[in-house]
Amino acid sequence: MSLDDLLSENERFVASFDLGGLRRPPAKRLAIITCMDARIHPIAALGLQLGDANVLRNAGAIVTQDVIRSLVVSNLLLGTRNAVVIGHSDCGMVDFTNETIRGRLASERGVDADALDFYPFADVARTVADGVRKLRESPLLDFDEVRGLLYDVDTGKLEPVEA
Amino acid sequence: MSLDDLLSENERFVASFDLGGLRRPPAKRLAIITCMDARIHPIAALGLQLGDANVLRNAGAIVTQDVIRSLVVSNLLLGTRNAVVIGHSDCGMVDFTNETIRGRLASERGVDADALDFYPFADVARTVADGVRKLRESPLLDFDEVRGLLYDVDTGKLEPVEA
Repeated sequence: MSLDDLLSENERFVASFDLGGLRRPPAKRLAIITCMDARIHPIAALGLQLGDANVLRNAGAIVTQDVIRSLVVSNLLLGTRNAVVIGHSDCGMVDFTNETIRGRLASERGVDADALDFYPFADVARTVADGVRKLRESPLLDFDEVRGLLYDVDTGKLEPVEA
Repeated sequence: MSLDDLLSENERFVASFDLGGLRRPPAKRLAIITCMDARIHPIAALGLQLGDANVLRNAGAIVTQDVIRSLVVSNLLLGTRNAVVIGHSDCGMVDFTNETIRGRLASERGVDADALDFYPFADVARTVADGVRKLRESPLLDFDEVRGLLYDVDTGKLEPVEA
């Protein structure tokens, strides 16, 4: 599909738009950190509405420096008080290593990416737990509660992760 | 709201779950980079369905190193061919400077964050255009098309950004 098609589709969205009254600070004072995976609808899965939560997404729901940067804005400036880190089943991050992705970048694109870490992982629950602890321990952040969850892309179910 | 409440809400989502057949590679081969702002529903605004696109979100829709990392996974491993960077009206990133946020972290949390860049900006269209060019020029990425858009949180309208 072309990107021009997307703009035509947006006209339909505008015609039935009913979200104009939302405010910038998240109504439920929540920040969600999850994966970029196309199958995840974090707001719906948590029974939330648009406007309720800041939503941060990257490959693997990894708590990177960029996530910490964004959460400082969310927590300090926009007033969020809780955070959830949501990993998921069938995550693509378990299917490669830094070596394989660097090898493909070298052979297919002629790029030396040896200095880049793509943060692949073998155990999604452990990765979520690591992220939760990182947020709890960051002196830059001051959340009341940070929790980890695992999302099942086949059933929609969220399960708590111990951290 | 407590995080336990969110898990109860998830039970309702599971009871009516109908997204079990989606596949990991985004069906429309699209990657969306947008802001964490609570008011944005990028999939709906573009007339897409769940499963169509990888969705990356951070404070300000900034093309950071973490966004590039995630997009390598999306583009090289998951096969996305187009990307859109979506900034929005009323973005909180225009309301502070690195100096103000570092000052608050020092006085309210006792943390020295002088080495951290929070990527505030004055002009959202320019920031989106910078992000688009960064993606087009990255040797790590190979998209057919990268475009910039601005989302109006009061009307739902998307407008193209020249880059």
